[in-house]
Amino acid sequence: MTDHAIYMQEALGLAAQALFLSNPNPRVGCVLVDAQGRVIGRGFTQQAGGPHAEVMALRDAAAQGHSTEGATAYVTLEPCAHHGRTGPCCDALIAAGVQQVVGAMTDPNPLVAGQGFARLRAAGVAVQVGPGATEAHELNIGFFHRMQRGLPWVRLKAAASLDGATALGNGLSQWITSPAARDDGHHWRARACAVLTGIGTVLADDPQLNVRAVATPRQPQVVVVDSRLRIPLDAKVLRAASACIIYTSSTNQPKIEALQALGTTVIQLPNTQGQVDLAAMVRDLAQRQINELHVEAGAILNGALLAQGLVDELLLYLAPQLLGLGCRGIAALGPLEQLSQGVALQLHDVAQVGPDLRVLARCVRG
Amino acid sequence: MTDHAIYMQEALGLAAQALFLSNPNPRVGCVLVDAQGRVIGRGFTQQAGGPHAEVMALRDAAAQGHSTEGATAYVTLEPCAHHGRTGPCCDALIAAGVQQVVGAMTDPNPLVAGQGFARLRAAGVAVQVGPGATEAHELNIGFFHRMQRGLPWVRLKAAASLDGATALGNGLSQWITSPAARDDGHHWRARACAVLTGIGTVLADDPQLNVRAVATPRQPQVVVVDSRLRIPLDAKVLRAASACIIYTSSTNQPKIEALQALGTTVIQLPNTQGQVDLAAMVRDLAQRQINELHVEAGAILNGALLAQGLVDELLLYLAPQLLGLGCRGIAALGPLEQLSQGVALQLHDVAQVGPDLRVLARCVRG
Repeated sequence: MTDHAIYMQEALGLAAQALFLSNPNPRVGCVLVDAQGRVIGRGFTQQAGGPHAEVMALRDAAAQGHSTEGATAYVTLEPCAHHGRTGPCCDALIAAGVQQVVGAMTDPNPLVAGQGFARLRAAGVAVQVGPGATEAHELNIGFFHRMQRGLPWVRLKAAASLDGATALGNGLSQWITSPAARDDGHHWRARACAVLTGIGTVLADDPQLNVRAVATPRQPQVVVVDSRLRIPLDAKVLRAASACIIYTSSTNQPKIEALQALGTTVIQLPNTQGQVDLAAMVRDLAQRQINELHVEAGAILNGALLAQGLVDELLLYLAPQLLGLGCRGIAALGPLEQLSQGVALQLHDVAQVGPDLRVLARCVRG
Repeated sequence: MTDHAIYMQEALGLAAQALFLSNPNPRVGCVLVDAQGRVIGRGFTQQAGGPHAEVMALRDAAAQGHSTEGATAYVTLEPCAHHGRTGPCCDALIAAGVQQVVGAMTDPNPLVAGQGFARLRAAGVAVQVGPGATEAHELNIGFFHRMQRGLPWVRLKAAASLDGATALGNGLSQWITSPAARDDGHHWRARACAVLTGIGTVLADDPQLNVRAVATPRQPQVVVVDSRLRIPLDAKVLRAASACIIYTSSTNQPKIEALQALGTTVIQLPNTQGQVDLAAMVRDLAQRQINELHVEAGAILNGALLAQGLVDELLLYLAPQLLGLGCRGIAALGPLEQLSQGVALQLHDVAQVGPDLRVLARCVRG
């Protein structure tokens, strides 16, 4: 690896530390290197409203008594050039005397979009873009998707036997996959801005849908699709630390007000069939700054999301077990008449998690 | 790696060259190394009745003009001590002046079972057993299973979508998995002594069940479970290069004779329900020297074999695709009332084959 690649790798490692923290801001890492090649400062994006990676790295260098004059900054995303809740990172780097910036990617945020690099160049800072781009993009796949398409990155999680059963015919599903796989699932919840489920799952299981198995400084929001507002007022998702959002086509005003009194946001988005308009819902969630939307739902909602092309990625845990016919499945599609009518995916990552298999596959757009 | 391990690795590579060749004899490789550590001869088991690995390696050394006096022989299985269709390999090694034999495993064949090593030691040859045992066992998993338990190693192959569909509800299944996966499947057919299917598959697809996608010097036998002898006389499996075996519970003598006239072996093995006694069938196949039995059948026969504990390994190709509910599945089990009633497996090997996933999982005996 070149030096650039090595330092960028370290910056990416730092960015990964912001995975559960910086939402809805991107996960960014920064490494400051002096002329002798010593790393003199490290930082990553803090929670929204807190300092960005560059500022954290500059503070780290200062705290260690290092001068940043003439240093090179490795950042996994273009430094911001706008005043958000924090000042522009570009200006901080320029003020600190940084001479060179190596960035993994241009920020897709229209408020940045090359202006950060331009401003650095205008100030005489050498800029290089490229190393680590793939990893930086993966870390922020939801942020990029939202910035570039106005949609969250929708990741549908399911747990099944090797023959595709998510539950027996009688509904039993606890537990098909192992504790290790279930804990791993919480990692993916923790990195999401929101966890989506359907009213069927709420009524059947009354899940909390929060992150418990891994340590996290923040909880994802819970989103429920509930066309007829059947959710009981004592459902666990309504008592979550982060306020719940319910999408409905119901006009039941007393129920809406009762839910609102619990701090729940109720959004009416009916389609022409009187159900929730799922495509509009997903767009609305992007507007609410949801980068990664983590879906844990039953076959009916899964099938509707998949059939409407609203899913980007399948996160599938497969337990080494066969449960036979007559079981519940991952997604209600069809019945199909042609194989080509299925949901086409591409394997992205396959790993063993405890005794189970974890398959990450991405939807292929026709 | 130690020298022993390196030479044994080469011997294992040679053994793998006998994968499609030596059935029902074990796949064995042999490397001869002189006192200077030079490899002076290489061999692997030829087709049944042909020379074993040790004899091939001795011939190879002789052909190259090398003396085998004082050499070390690395063999992936204990040299045979009995007169089968060929003379005992022990005697050939002793006669060639081999001073040391390093064997991966003791031969489970009761006709050998340590006698080979004993005879070598008695002749003053140093014997060491152990390196490469795991790989040597895997290569001959069917041979070991048959020798030790009187049963073939039953490998059930299936191809499905990620949600477990082997065909749409209307029967369409060509093709869920990719050409690469289908070709890979022929590799597993080629190493099997026999390919088993059910009459349902014969009637629906009229498959050949022979090896076409990979080069092979021999074809596996085809075995059909056909309780009521419904097989048409023009079924492709009856015209295969290797004679077909049909297990039945039928007593339809004219049909039996018509099948026999085609060279087919018809075996009546009814159980008390008037179907084929699958457990007895599997035992019978072991007596017919079937080491690895490769099953490519429909959900009903698959389910019956699995439910009766007659399957050792699942070879599952999963295409990155979702086909939804109402599809055909891998195995008709249940309907189950408890998750613990499922078929418990353990992942053994996971690989990507073209765009698909290949999962090799082994049945866990309760």
